[in-house]
Amino acid sequence: MNEPPKTSPADMSPPRARQAFRTGLRVPTSGYCAGWTQANLIALPRAYAYDFLLFSQRNPRSCPVLDVSEPGEARTSIFDGDLRTDLPAYRVYSEGEFVAERDEVTDLWRDDLVCFLIGCSFTFETALLQAGVPVRHLEQGSNVPMYRTSRNCRPAGTLHAPLVVSMRPIPADLVATAVRVTARYPAVHGAPLHVGSPEQLGITDLDRPDFGDAVEIRPGEVPVFWGCGVTPQAAVMRSKPPFALAHAPGHMAVTDTHDSAFLVP
Amino acid sequence: MNEPPKTSPADMSPPRARQAFRTGLRVPTSGYCAGWTQANLIALPRAYAYDFLLFSQRNPRSCPVLDVSEPGEARTSIFDGDLRTDLPAYRVYSEGEFVAERDEVTDLWRDDLVCFLIGCSFTFETALLQAGVPVRHLEQGSNVPMYRTSRNCRPAGTLHAPLVVSMRPIPADLVATAVRVTARYPAVHGAPLHVGSPEQLGITDLDRPDFGDAVEIRPGEVPVFWGCGVTPQAAVMRSKPPFALAHAPGHMAVTDTHDSAFLVP
Repeated sequence: MNEPPKTSPADMSPPRARQAFRTGLRVPTSGYCAGWTQANLIALPRAYAYDFLLFSQRNPRSCPVLDVSEPGEARTSIFDGDLRTDLPAYRVYSEGEFVAERDEVTDLWRDDLVCFLIGCSFTFETALLQAGVPVRHLEQGSNVPMYRTSRNCRPAGTLHAPLVVSMRPIPADLVATAVRVTARYPAVHGAPLHVGSPEQLGITDLDRPDFGDAVEIRPGEVPVFWGCGVTPQAAVMRSKPPFALAHAPGHMAVTDTHDSAFLVP
Repeated sequence: MNEPPKTSPADMSPPRARQAFRTGLRVPTSGYCAGWTQANLIALPRAYAYDFLLFSQRNPRSCPVLDVSEPGEARTSIFDGDLRTDLPAYRVYSEGEFVAERDEVTDLWRDDLVCFLIGCSFTFETALLQAGVPVRHLEQGSNVPMYRTSRNCRPAGTLHAPLVVSMRPIPADLVATAVRVTARYPAVHGAPLHVGSPEQLGITDLDRPDFGDAVEIRPGEVPVFWGCGVTPQAAVMRSKPPFALAHAPGHMAVTDTHDSAFLVP
């Protein structure tokens, strides 16, 4: 029998990508399933669900909620897969400590877990490319760099967190284009929170991101910062709920919703 | 001593309007405090707060949450007044039954009440007027007509509700303008949910709104329907939590936030 024809990551359908991740492929998902919305995952016990939903309402730029599961359910209305297995990699937190990175988390599942899918800036990268804005981590084939900043989110109940941002170096003459293009996607972080001056965010070394990979910043390029859906994991680390599951940064949930659903016309 | 100079409702500041409402003025707030955001109020026991916040997340067109109080607190970050006294009129619900309309609700306050401020379509009426789109209930000096529809919102936990809409008759050649103008305010109901054909929404008689006042529809005008923040009260009536407080329809909380905060550029 012949092998099925190879499909490029960008051309994969969400079910096919999820199958690949479920059966062992462990890669950052940036560039996969072009046009299909990717999401950050945070799963928390039901007792923390109100605080988290309120935290999201108060910090919509970093935590735009796309969908919420029923307690114990591993799928949502926009994710027709299994949230315990269909992401490339997971992080496990116990009392706020990052204790393991895993391929799947079926054995750790609990009936009281509520899954929150949070918008991801990968969603607008197709639109950036179409507007002629280069996306460096895609060119490099690496994960986007993410940084814990010195700015605090608005707290909610037991949850407090530093703001986490993703960074893309943008040629100075394309910064305005990048702002305009991404502003049209407010549900997936929207416009940049900050352009240039990483030191104002308390970022001392762009070459040492807190999550993901460093990328080259070329002469004439400006570091541009967007809100990042890893912020909930920073909240878990600081606020220490007894248990939490999350995607590994950059290794997202590929949903069955199209990016155009989040485009403001 | 001379009386202070009269201020038109549109020119009032939020603190001044709240003082007037606190001291007995009982009128619909459409047209008051031009440019300042008005909000629907629903206050529910903390035990129902997660369900309500999730209901809002699942029904953002009818229930866009602008702000949430801490349990027992009668103010929020965008409302520097007293939510128990500073609205023109309140409705009280017990086990889902509408039991009283009141000028203030201080004596009914409870330490576990969480106040949700929900975006209100009055917010974009200034923008409609500036775009040359007439707003009939302002011309008539009456309350906006609101209708319970035959469409259901997505339920969340214990909460389920019919969609409630507000209606404005718009001249046919200005419907597109009204859509474009209001689409720029997604946090306060945004674009219309429905244009024309009230029977498709299960509305049999536009002259008999479920809340507010009927308005004249002139030849050549089309009834245009927007999501309405009275939907939470419809949820209370159908889902019957033990206790709830709300604004009287059309008698909103005037906040200290400017409409421009909700404008998508």
